[in-house]
Amino acid sequence: MQQENSSQERDPQMFMHNKRLMYTVRVSEPNPKLASLMLEQFGGPQGELAAAMRYFTQALAESDPGRKDMLMDIATEEISHLEVIGNIIVMLNRGVKGKMAEGLEDGELLSEITQGGESHTTSLLFGGGAALINSGGAPWTAAYVDTIGEPTADLRSNIAAEARAKIIYERLMNVTGDAGVKDALGFLMTREIAHQKSFEKALYAISPNFPPGKTPGMPNFTNKYFNMSQGDGDMSGPWNAGNGWEVVTDRREQAAVDGGDGAATVELSAEDSRLLEAAAARTASRTDIDPMTGAELGADGANASSRRRR
Amino acid sequence: MQQENSSQERDPQMFMHNKRLMYTVRVSEPNPKLASLMLEQFGGPQGELAAAMRYFTQALAESDPGRKDMLMDIATEEISHLEVIGNIIVMLNRGVKGKMAEGLEDGELLSEITQGGESHTTSLLFGGGAALINSGGAPWTAAYVDTIGEPTADLRSNIAAEARAKIIYERLMNVTGDAGVKDALGFLMTREIAHQKSFEKALYAISPNFPPGKTPGMPNFTNKYFNMSQGDGDMSGPWNAGNGWEVVTDRREQAAVDGGDGAATVELSAEDSRLLEAAAARTASRTDIDPMTGAELGADGANASSRRRR
Amino acid sequence: MQQENSSQERDPQMFMHNKRLMYTVRVSEPNPKLASLMLEQFGGPQGELAAAMRYFTQALAESDPGRKDMLMDIATEEISHLEVIGNIIVMLNRGVKGKMAEGLEDGELLSEITQGGESHTTSLLFGGGAALINSGGAPWTAAYVDTIGEPTADLRSNIAAEARAKIIYERLMNVTGDAGVKDALGFLMTREIAHQKSFEKALYAISPNFPPGKTPGMPNFTNKYFNMSQGDGDMSGPWNAGNGWEVVTDRREQAAVDGGDGAATVELSAEDSRLLEAAAARTASRTDIDPMTGAELGADGANASSRRRR
Amino acid sequence: MQQENSSQERDPQMFMHNKRLMYTVRVSEPNPKLASLMLEQFGGPQGELAAAMRYFTQALAESDPGRKDMLMDIATEEISHLEVIGNIIVMLNRGVKGKMAEGLEDGELLSEITQGGESHTTSLLFGGGAALINSGGAPWTAAYVDTIGEPTADLRSNIAAEARAKIIYERLMNVTGDAGVKDALGFLMTREIAHQKSFEKALYAISPNFPPGKTPGMPNFTNKYFNMSQGDGDMSGPWNAGNGWEVVTDRREQAAVDGGDGAATVELSAEDSRLLEAAAARTASRTDIDPMTGAELGADGANASSRRRR
Amino acid sequence: MQQENSSQERDPQMFMHNKRLMYTVRVSEPNPKLASLMLEQFGGPQGELAAAMRYFTQALAESDPGRKDMLMDIATEEISHLEVIGNIIVMLNRGVKGKMAEGLEDGELLSEITQGGESHTTSLLFGGGAALINSGGAPWTAAYVDTIGEPTADLRSNIAAEARAKIIYERLMNVTGDAGVKDALGFLMTREIAHQKSFEKALYAISPNFPPGKTPGMPNFTNKYFNMSQGDGDMSGPWNAGNGWEVVTDRREQAAVDGGDGAATVELSAEDSRLLEAAAARTASRTDIDPMTGAELGADGANASSRRRR
Amino acid sequence: MQQENSSQERDPQMFMHNKRLMYTVRVSEPNPKLASLMLEQFGGPQGELAAAMRYFTQALAESDPGRKDMLMDIATEEISHLEVIGNIIVMLNRGVKGKMAEGLEDGELLSEITQGGESHTTSLLFGGGAALINSGGAPWTAAYVDTIGEPTADLRSNIAAEARAKIIYERLMNVTGDAGVKDALGFLMTREIAHQKSFEKALYAISPNFPPGKTPGMPNFTNKYFNMSQGDGDMSGPWNAGNGWEVVTDRREQAAVDGGDGAATVELSAEDSRLLEAAAARTASRTDIDPMTGAELGADGANASSRRRR
Repeated sequence: MQQENSSQERDPQMFMHNKRLMYTVRVSEPNPKLASLMLEQFGGPQGELAAAMRYFTQALAESDPGRKDMLMDIATEEISHLEVIGNIIVMLNRGVKGKMAEGLEDGELLSEITQGGESHTTSLLFGGGAALINSGGAPWTAAYVDTIGEPTADLRSNIAAEARAKIIYERLMNVTGDAGVKDALGFLMTREIAHQKSFEKALYAISPNFPPGKTPGMPNFTNKYFNMSQGDGDMSGPWNAGNGWEVVTDRREQAAVDGGDGAATVELSAEDSRLLEAAAARTASRTDIDPMTGAELGADGANASSRRRR
Repeated sequence: MQQENSSQERDPQMFMHNKRLMYTVRVSEPNPKLASLMLEQFGGPQGELAAAMRYFTQALAESDPGRKDMLMDIATEEISHLEVIGNIIVMLNRGVKGKMAEGLEDGELLSEITQGGESHTTSLLFGGGAALINSGGAPWTAAYVDTIGEPTADLRSNIAAEARAKIIYERLMNVTGDAGVKDALGFLMTREIAHQKSFEKALYAISPNFPPGKTPGMPNFTNKYFNMSQGDGDMSGPWNAGNGWEVVTDRREQAAVDGGDGAATVELSAEDSRLLEAAAARTASRTDIDPMTGAELGADGANASSRRRR
Repeated sequence: MQQENSSQERDPQMFMHNKRLMYTVRVSEPNPKLASLMLEQFGGPQGELAAAMRYFTQALAESDPGRKDMLMDIATEEISHLEVIGNIIVMLNRGVKGKMAEGLEDGELLSEITQGGESHTTSLLFGGGAALINSGGAPWTAAYVDTIGEPTADLRSNIAAEARAKIIYERLMNVTGDAGVKDALGFLMTREIAHQKSFEKALYAISPNFPPGKTPGMPNFTNKYFNMSQGDGDMSGPWNAGNGWEVVTDRREQAAVDGGDGAATVELSAEDSRLLEAAAARTASRTDIDPMTGAELGADGANASSRRRR
Repeated sequence: MQQENSSQERDPQMFMHNKRLMYTVRVSEPNPKLASLMLEQFGGPQGELAAAMRYFTQALAESDPGRKDMLMDIATEEISHLEVIGNIIVMLNRGVKGKMAEGLEDGELLSEITQGGESHTTSLLFGGGAALINSGGAPWTAAYVDTIGEPTADLRSNIAAEARAKIIYERLMNVTGDAGVKDALGFLMTREIAHQKSFEKALYAISPNFPPGKTPGMPNFTNKYFNMSQGDGDMSGPWNAGNGWEVVTDRREQAAVDGGDGAATVELSAEDSRLLEAAAARTASRTDIDPMTGAELGADGANASSRRRR
Repeated sequence: MQQENSSQERDPQMFMHNKRLMYTVRVSEPNPKLASLMLEQFGGPQGELAAAMRYFTQALAESDPGRKDMLMDIATEEISHLEVIGNIIVMLNRGVKGKMAEGLEDGELLSEITQGGESHTTSLLFGGGAALINSGGAPWTAAYVDTIGEPTADLRSNIAAEARAKIIYERLMNVTGDAGVKDALGFLMTREIAHQKSFEKALYAISPNFPPGKTPGMPNFTNKYFNMSQGDGDMSGPWNAGNGWEVVTDRREQAAVDGGDGAATVELSAEDSRLLEAAAARTASRTDIDPMTGAELGADGANASSRRRR
Repeated sequence: MQQENSSQERDPQMFMHNKRLMYTVRVSEPNPKLASLMLEQFGGPQGELAAAMRYFTQALAESDPGRKDMLMDIATEEISHLEVIGNIIVMLNRGVKGKMAEGLEDGELLSEITQGGESHTTSLLFGGGAALINSGGAPWTAAYVDTIGEPTADLRSNIAAEARAKIIYERLMNVTGDAGVKDALGFLMTREIAHQKSFEKALYAISPNFPPGKTPGMPNFTNKYFNMSQGDGDMSGPWNAGNGWEVVTDRREQAAVDGGDGAATVELSAEDSRLLEAAAARTASRTDIDPMTGAELGADGANASSRRRR
């Protein structure tokens, strides 16, 4: 027995908090409709909680000291971003919050909370807070976190996730008229670019990193491109031409590419076979008859085939 | 227009991280079966992420300076607990991690990753990391977070959540033979007690706090106890006896308690009524016939009612 | 062997139904927008199905005869409330139902079903019925039910759930202009107050009930308050001052509070260590180089680093 | 040992694609509001992905050569329908796509993407594509697929699924003013009718097919109808009258219908009984006291029962 | 204006409870492994809660007095079945419940709660109760409820659901050695047969009921069978032969079956077209080059393309 | 108005099927434990359905003819892979299928279906078929599909997804002793490598592709690296050193990095402010008292603070 006590395992991690935001949030006026769209980056699939949890779970299991440190740095920053976007939402909902808590003329409030997409959900269910839902009202789920614990795959996932988050921030900036909101979104968007760069460096600091993992591919199938969608519009590009690519267009060469019969088989014990045959016989389909069916009963009307009830 | 810039709004929040755990984790040996159970408090409904997100979302929307500070203090501590339990899981899975990455004799690894409940999921899908799933493999969902943005309700939710988390830690301690794991779990369990005490104090620092919210109840129905489940075993206790309770046992007094006819009605326009009647007529149920049905066709066998196929 | 056949186990439970609502529902006119908000208490997290299932699952597993009876009484009442709120929704959607079934001028119907939030979902997918979704369209999930089978925790969950449900009814009353709907909501809201009182009595009829469960806390950590969020706005209140509280503000005393080194360790077999080292070596991060990355390739443009395709 | 290599197992299945739609899609103009409703049949519970996956999973496990062929035929057609409805959505969103990618005057875009229900989600999150969500924004889930691997049950599920899908298409046609969209929807609707007919034939080609499965029912309870909902409005029809039905209305004959005591019992070991009794004693409910509760503390106000803080 | 107050609307529904089970439950001994399988019919997709909610939501929205009464009768019976299966689970878990609450020798309890599939989840998380999860641990979701508010579709859904539930009970009986459990399961299984018969009668009491709904199909496509899956094993049966079926096997007649060009088109404004072209130009794919990619960088190793870090 | 009818829009897509698998599946013997692990790539997050749907939804919305063709080629191939892995699962479950359908000695079947993780779910609920769940029993969800409709982000998502899928196949090969299964898995694994290469080429055929999207970052924040996690173990590597990186370690420079006060503010109307103040006053926290709480009541025991019930 020996103890795994390398430095990275000995000095991990504790969180602290300081009472200033990472970026100042200056919202010009309440706007629950806009708040509802901003939820996309609070509780949505490309949002800050998903980012933080992606890097945090990777950091926990990572043994390489450099990557572990980087992952925890960025995970911590994403939690701070979660606060920034959360504060934007809370400020945009401030007007509704008071009305909801203290009451208002009925019609007025109903109109306000239903004026924009899901903002009523935010306002009604969460009382003007920031909920961990996306802009369409779907609750955040850990199914968004694609960590699998292998660094050359996980770093590629991180690169892609930062690219997606960058685009969503860009789209949110396109729908925002409020200058203060736009400024804070611009900061958050920019940081996704910086993080993508860090993850790219970390990926290529592993050498080789392609193909990912340890087991090599079957040489026969590594450079084949199966032209599965055929017809007018077949295109050629670097993804299937040049550079060693072999395009397979003949439909017969796309099936059973191992040279076998393209069937699925399993060796069964005599007992298993007997039981399967019994089940098959019991539920066999007779193909030689044209049975009367429920659809025909229903189409004919019930009268023809039914008796007056006693 | 005036700016909402009270101190609590001006100086919120940013997260930082320090490379030591809040509590030292000394695991005696790898045990993926135990790791799989520990997931309950990492990615389960009563676990640390649910706790952190419950208090963090409340803190964001809270305006009262004292509660906001307390909620952020405890949210931050819960994130640090998430790290502790995550490190326990990672250490318990350390043995599988290497085998999974580097390969092993087949049978041995298959046996190891299927020996306990969901541990194979952790090991296979997440490569020996800590995933945001419960001990039964269900992904964490924001449906676990019951924040609604009203302090006398949310503080009660927090009190209940701490009580539940305390019990789950107690149960995990009951299934743990590893002294180091048990010690760390004991710390986490104890902190739930301390947090419950803080939330209790914060609730009663609001006065009055019952009934929650602003609208009073209808006096007629505030002290009634409807005895809906009757028969041998009807019991009396402080929840329905003494202290002003009025028990309603007569079935006739349990329905239409407003004195109305117990029906649901709506005023419809003539056009709406006409359309509803047309739909009703089209799908009306004839009660005076005994129609032949698919079940009878199926029970008789298809032969009787079917023709030999041409 | 002996048989567990105490009275509470011998005479449990069967449901029956009577054809009058618990409270008369008088809706003044169809309003699909309002119907969509009402779904919050039909298929939402604080709604009547969640309440009924919370108490019903507790009642099933409960052995204490008094609590079992109370839980089944209130579970049964909540199912009756589910009917009341369901009837409100169905009446509010009556106008759309006929139009949807029989057809209408196209534009008119499209406009009607999209006028309010999610009401189109209700109308389109469910044909004007009441669906088990919240007001934002998310399907009801058993993740809302926080029963854990320990009475001092479960009763606190019930108290909190009743408080939340009371608030949601209050908010729904605030957005309702229809007097009949408001009246029925007022009844449902009032019953949550009565139920909270019953659950409070039942909790304190267990003595002691704090801390919940059997295992005591570690004395060292039961009265500590970790000031994790620091900066302007640190507050003192009964949750962290007086009454035995010890506030820990020094960051160094917040980490590794057990006096250890704040690391996570595990004893590994030689074989496990060897495999982990092999995996680490294979994916080691080289920190001494500045590798060319995909981001740089992408920023430069593909031209510079690519060849004209053959 | 013998090999299961009947013809249906030997020659299963591979998918190919041709670059023409099964039905031409001619959309008259962009309409994101309508696009959002069309999602119901792309990523909704009665939509084409659910249909395709229902039949595909049945086909995989089916051993009967006729049913296996039919299931794969129809599964393949449903994937082609998924393309048709997906193309309708993409065309309806074409206008938003360009604006979202290239930017616009702020207010204009915000107004456009929030004009209808969930269309903002489609537009913002998915950039004008077709997402696997229903019209209310809930992500597609395999919980929609009700395959259980028994043909007389699965075929009935298929018949029902086709009937539901037919109705949803009919409703979508009712809200569509666009002639090209209506035409394509009409084709898709019609195919559901044809598929229902095929599944009906396949069901009745199994004889007998009722009751489903192998185990017969208990003769005592096969023809009883329990009148569980009583009061004004009790109705009689072919579902409970004539044809051998025996209606049970007496409440006493609805409980413990086996003639037993209607209790649930289990034989426990002495040790199990001892532990259960210990747990029961520890959490016993005292019914003879009227304890002070948190609700009373909260209603009184904290002042009365609290001390000025030191 | 006129009031919709027909008798079925005036006298709906309230639930009551009596303290005897519908069927006596006699479990011979605790068996958490079996308990975990029984969860399938408590919180699983074909289980009793899904059944009860399916019929209850249909009953709420139904206007036909006969069907409304029948649906409420059967919904109420299914809730009573939910109690029976819930009591079976609770009895099977009784042994674990005490051990979990009171503590045990560590190893023993760990072994017991992990011995069978998900039973540890039940035991640990729910303390020996019956949770609303399926036998694989997935929480119950309203996505299981396929009510759409059209009677000829919903009744077919009910028929299929009863058939599926019958089969699951049959499978559970096959894995049960406990005679008392088997007896109660047999009762529940039998009732599914009776319910299927009632729903069949109710479906055919509507005439006509096929095709479902109001809009007829396009005559061209109602009797076509597209042979989409071709090759050895093409089969003919009543689902595609005889009875008016026209089989389409020629691949060219399977695409663009409307006689159009099989393309998707939309009329765009000049501004929309301009923006789409700008976006297309910005992200155009150059097909004439063979760009260096990240994969090549990664395969070469970082050394070749990287500089020693300054 | 002008019609968008470029060639790629005019000739899209229809699916066909041929009755041979893409790769021959030769399973040596039934093994439900292994079948349950294989589900990971059938209905799991990195599995073939997720892959197929990721590329199919991208193909639908894509306008670039080259990328659209490539995406449809690969989507179609992934559906064919879904069949291969599905057939592997079905063959591995063949033994259980017969036993489940026809019945067996009770104990034997119970033991077989619970021997490995989730295999009982597969066997019981799905009757020996292949279900759209992951190896831990969680149903497939569209939350796994990360398509956002922007090609430089989506292609990166595809690259990452292929890398993850490659690793999962490698892990499954590590746990498989069956040579036929291993061979088919090897083919599927290899194709992920080929697909990753195609997506890499397609990404770099867009120039520039970094940063993704149209809006540039704020120059101030593009090259900063915030050292958020500090303490022993701070590391330097290409992700934060050299190449223009500026590391920010001073905690004061990590907050309010815009130079503002790090607060969140919003301009409110006088009415909004008044309502918020009213709500704040109503729920204000008194910090100067030490209120009696429920925890103290519970700890004291109910006796002290309660009266004997009348």
